[in-house]
Amino acid sequence: MQRVVDLRSDTVTRPSTGMRRAMAEAEVGDDVFGEDPTVRELEEYVAELLEKPAALYAPSGTMTNQISLNLGCGRGEEAILHEEAHVFNYEAGAPAMLSGVQVRPVAGERGRVSPEALRRAVRPENVHFAPARLLCLENTHNACGGLVYPVVPFAATAAEARDLGLRVHLDGARLFNAAVATGEPASAWCRHADTVSVCSSKGLGAPVGSLIAGSREDIERARHVRKAFGGGMRQAGVIAAASLYAFRNNIERLAEDHERARRLAEGLADAGYAVEPPETNIVLVASESPDALLRDLADRGVLATPGRSGYVRLCTHLDIDDRDIEYAVRVAAEVRTENP
Amino acid sequence: MQRVVDLRSDTVTRPSTGMRRAMAEAEVGDDVFGEDPTVRELEEYVAELLEKPAALYAPSGTMTNQISLNLGCGRGEEAILHEEAHVFNYEAGAPAMLSGVQVRPVAGERGRVSPEALRRAVRPENVHFAPARLLCLENTHNACGGLVYPVVPFAATAAEARDLGLRVHLDGARLFNAAVATGEPASAWCRHADTVSVCSSKGLGAPVGSLIAGSREDIERARHVRKAFGGGMRQAGVIAAASLYAFRNNIERLAEDHERARRLAEGLADAGYAVEPPETNIVLVASESPDALLRDLADRGVLATPGRSGYVRLCTHLDIDDRDIEYAVRVAAEVRTENP
Amino acid sequence: MQRVVDLRSDTVTRPSTGMRRAMAEAEVGDDVFGEDPTVRELEEYVAELLEKPAALYAPSGTMTNQISLNLGCGRGEEAILHEEAHVFNYEAGAPAMLSGVQVRPVAGERGRVSPEALRRAVRPENVHFAPARLLCLENTHNACGGLVYPVVPFAATAAEARDLGLRVHLDGARLFNAAVATGEPASAWCRHADTVSVCSSKGLGAPVGSLIAGSREDIERARHVRKAFGGGMRQAGVIAAASLYAFRNNIERLAEDHERARRLAEGLADAGYAVEPPETNIVLVASESPDALLRDLADRGVLATPGRSGYVRLCTHLDIDDRDIEYAVRVAAEVRTENP
Amino acid sequence: MQRVVDLRSDTVTRPSTGMRRAMAEAEVGDDVFGEDPTVRELEEYVAELLEKPAALYAPSGTMTNQISLNLGCGRGEEAILHEEAHVFNYEAGAPAMLSGVQVRPVAGERGRVSPEALRRAVRPENVHFAPARLLCLENTHNACGGLVYPVVPFAATAAEARDLGLRVHLDGARLFNAAVATGEPASAWCRHADTVSVCSSKGLGAPVGSLIAGSREDIERARHVRKAFGGGMRQAGVIAAASLYAFRNNIERLAEDHERARRLAEGLADAGYAVEPPETNIVLVASESPDALLRDLADRGVLATPGRSGYVRLCTHLDIDDRDIEYAVRVAAEVRTENP
Ligand SMILES: [Ca+2]
Ligand SMILES: [Ca+2]
Ligand SMILES: [Ca+2]
Ligand SMILES: [Ca+2]
Ligand SMILES: [Ca+2]
Ligand SMILES: [Ca+2]
Repeated sequence: MQRVVDLRSDTVTRPSTGMRRAMAEAEVGDDVFGEDPTVRELEEYVAELLEKPAALYAPSGTMTNQISLNLGCGRGEEAILHEEAHVFNYEAGAPAMLSGVQVRPVAGERGRVSPEALRRAVRPENVHFAPARLLCLENTHNACGGLVYPVVPFAATAAEARDLGLRVHLDGARLFNAAVATGEPASAWCRHADTVSVCSSKGLGAPVGSLIAGSREDIERARHVRKAFGGGMRQAGVIAAASLYAFRNNIERLAEDHERARRLAEGLADAGYAVEPPETNIVLVASESPDALLRDLADRGVLATPGRSGYVRLCTHLDIDDRDIEYAVRVAAEVRTENP
Repeated sequence: MQRVVDLRSDTVTRPSTGMRRAMAEAEVGDDVFGEDPTVRELEEYVAELLEKPAALYAPSGTMTNQISLNLGCGRGEEAILHEEAHVFNYEAGAPAMLSGVQVRPVAGERGRVSPEALRRAVRPENVHFAPARLLCLENTHNACGGLVYPVVPFAATAAEARDLGLRVHLDGARLFNAAVATGEPASAWCRHADTVSVCSSKGLGAPVGSLIAGSREDIERARHVRKAFGGGMRQAGVIAAASLYAFRNNIERLAEDHERARRLAEGLADAGYAVEPPETNIVLVASESPDALLRDLADRGVLATPGRSGYVRLCTHLDIDDRDIEYAVRVAAEVRTENP
Repeated sequence: MQRVVDLRSDTVTRPSTGMRRAMAEAEVGDDVFGEDPTVRELEEYVAELLEKPAALYAPSGTMTNQISLNLGCGRGEEAILHEEAHVFNYEAGAPAMLSGVQVRPVAGERGRVSPEALRRAVRPENVHFAPARLLCLENTHNACGGLVYPVVPFAATAAEARDLGLRVHLDGARLFNAAVATGEPASAWCRHADTVSVCSSKGLGAPVGSLIAGSREDIERARHVRKAFGGGMRQAGVIAAASLYAFRNNIERLAEDHERARRLAEGLADAGYAVEPPETNIVLVASESPDALLRDLADRGVLATPGRSGYVRLCTHLDIDDRDIEYAVRVAAEVRTENP
Repeated sequence: MQRVVDLRSDTVTRPSTGMRRAMAEAEVGDDVFGEDPTVRELEEYVAELLEKPAALYAPSGTMTNQISLNLGCGRGEEAILHEEAHVFNYEAGAPAMLSGVQVRPVAGERGRVSPEALRRAVRPENVHFAPARLLCLENTHNACGGLVYPVVPFAATAAEARDLGLRVHLDGARLFNAAVATGEPASAWCRHADTVSVCSSKGLGAPVGSLIAGSREDIERARHVRKAFGGGMRQAGVIAAASLYAFRNNIERLAEDHERARRLAEGLADAGYAVEPPETNIVLVASESPDALLRDLADRGVLATPGRSGYVRLCTHLDIDDRDIEYAVRVAAEVRTENP
């Protein structure tokens, strides 16, 4: 059987033996009644990790992001975000659909929204304008290739937002990649945001689940919104156990994914590809015909996805080891030799 | 330690050893890529069970009901349902919030909507009226005390709905209770509905999860709506395995819950309570001061919930055995003796 | 040419010569810039009349009601109203469509919501429940036959609403009919409501226009919502002049419409019809076959509309004089003679 | 008293004597019953003018645009438009608020969306993506300075839209300015669009009112949406008469506004201002401190508005004559001399 190296996303990981055991042994209760001890433990663990007063578990990162939008904006109000933001581009139009919120995308280098760009995007009080109420920032930035949003510019834009009367949401689906890559604690960003969402099912390797963290009052409201969105689950401890395991065991090891992404990028560059230098676990390879390159790689068992226009995207994660990287580089080199 | 008999809901069950084992051994993949074999198997199993072309897994019954509403009604259109319906009363205003759908509640005996009541509720084409597009029926009917909606009147109202140009959704959160209580297959009702939602986390005892079944086209659209609602999960096989186990192993045994509910009702009646004769696993006890009765029972470890106004509601399930029933009856009798 | 007596609605009136002159001479400006002096004058006039701090002009009663709902309820929150309310039944599903608001209809005699019924309808804080935030009362009550909601029970229910933490909106499309019929000033009801909508295009005889009145802060928000709803108009003074004329000249004369409705009802009763005794300008006639009766009347030039199920509805207004009433009674008597 | 030259917008015009007379003499009826002969005549007149099967009158251009969005996109679907589009920037967030529609803004020269930009903006079928269903184009383009969207590139992008399965809406608030400026009939653009909105209250000089034109089926649906949006009016003939007068009498004369805009631009350029050469009735003047310039002009009675960032915007219309232009130029020259 052909070797398969699945670099499509860090969401594809399968629960490890330890994680499976945690799930099997999880103490559970009815979380809609607030009685699942594992869910509670997870929520407290993550709240502490992010240095926020409270947190809430939900089935997906889309749901925690959309709950945050709902908390931050009323009907007909505006959320400002980067034009490549996940909330705008990959969440199925949910801001408008679920919350009646208009999204205002803003251009910016490296997935960032500069204080100046933010100020330009926020318009004065006027009946013609949807009032801007929320700034969403994303870290690491998925569509821009896993780039870290450094604390200093992040804090500057968040300060500008506050100055303009906006709340701040941090889409931190891959926040721990940023933390590990920079050595900063996750809370270094969280302290500049009202709400933060983090995912356990991406690089951390849990099968399911995301959390939103914020003030006690926001999380109380979030619980209500989660119910309306259909995210209230019963004995959710069976999956929360996996998420708790992920937060406890799999954060530091993200450094390995980053190191492998670096080696993958190096190998691909050596093989003649134009590669964006990775900052975390995502590698973008420029290609004139991404579909053809994806097909050629897949024929040899190396799976990747289209990145933004003109790019192929490869993603390392905890089911990828050194030999997978070597194999992927070798295969990519062969493809290049055959299609120079 | 005091014995606790938790009769608050059939959602409180904890996964059994067999179910835990199924979860621990589940083969998984990324379900957002459509690659989780356990989720697929579950969806196919339930589709066949309900005799529908396709089914889709989601984190809650609220989500599958609300997806059905979204499929059945556009913005500013109307869903007609019983005034005690779960979709109207217990789903946090989601029809209006998520889909812009107005709900038109209709009175009716035993949780039913008669063909005449339906016809009266549907108004003619006129710019003043929200056009009625969907009828929602619920079986068994939760707020009405787990009453079965027999096939004949169900089919009659569904036929009337079709005649009026409406789609039909069956909120079958406890459909298998109706099936087991009557000896009819679940499909006897499903064939009169365009979409059906069923829950694995109620009497069937799984920790999490609900499915919506319908035509292939509807389920394809449902997949899109689920993503926007935040219900797309990754390695969902870890919980789908429990749901699959529940559908395979726990349907027939609902008869035991029904038998225990019957004995519970009998015992309570013998102790002097005014009890509605149960048809499935829910027992409604009339009380002039339900809050006081709930508190007195809880003081002795018997947990129940408020039913509709003037009632206390007790619910049997697979974590309740014969001795729990005996204990609950004995405690209730004591309470009555002390507060005649 | 056959005489036509149009009793379908008090909306059918055509502007009088005096009203036309007021329109022709109206001073105007751009109301979106807040510069139309006639609109401002109208808004101030109505605010004073209702003893509210501020008012806002809009193109229709549906719009002013829906703005009030939007001010009073967030997404997924609940407005409680009578099951025959105009807001629920004749506004095209707008509460859900425009504002994501769930409507909870309540039964009640004579179009009223009793304090007890209100209390029962408001449910406790719980993630399953859409939080109730707004009570809507209607006076006079259109679908119930123009019945007056007397001040005392109105105030009692409004007090209960406040006690329950709800805001109160008064749909006063025909509030001046209630005022004239009882001798109470309109403000007697308005003081119990946060927002009030009144129409100039019903009994008052203007061609177009409704106003919402309330606190300065609410009206400021209302201005923003009106813009989003598409209700911002430019030189609206040309129609506001007609509305201002209507408020200045046509309130007291509603007494004539009431007197004619009384005589119409008397005449119909004498002719053998089962008539609900009118309190204002609407007459409900019970009929086993309303459609046939409407057709028979229309064949002779008397136009009416279906009332609630089993009723025909006739409405007096300022284009109906004594001879119109005599004619309508005579025609109805003939119809009855021919179809006993 | 100081002379005032109001160049803020072509919406500020006041109805002329002839228009006032048309209003005063208008035959009216109840348009909610479809019985206002003047509204009908207006709708037929505009439908013919645009060569569309049907048209519908509504109180504002925001409402007709938003009805078109509602017809063209379901909840959670996407409308693609230019980043400076009125629908996105000046309609108070209505696409998301009223219809749950996500807007995807696209950059482009001169207010245009190129076929290539459109194709890039439309993403493939995928649960992560809000499906694109509608392209909105604007002609003339307001925020870009009244620029004409020539027929050839307009048709090319519309053809691309169709090829991609999208509907096309033309925001033609100032379509007749484009028609008069180019000598093309308005229908030259309309034939490439499914729905078109045109305003009577801008350059055409009516006090109120906009129309949406399209297929009979779309206009029937539009009538329903208009009711829900609160745009159903009663004896609307009193204002429709002004709109009808405007369409009949004030289209050709837009050439005078364009000529005056040209002379205004020339005069300003001669006075040393950096002026964008106008194509229709809007003049954009670059300024390092637009607020100061606006204030200085207003001090001398010349009123203008901020244009897009870094610009002041002046707009000619039928209440501006040659002497107004001379005065404005003289004043602007003085301001410049004093603040070189
Ligand atoms: Ca995973
Ligand atoms: Ca369970
Ligand atoms: Ca009228
Ligand atoms: Ca009822
Ligand atoms: Ca005007
Ligand atoms: Ca002038």
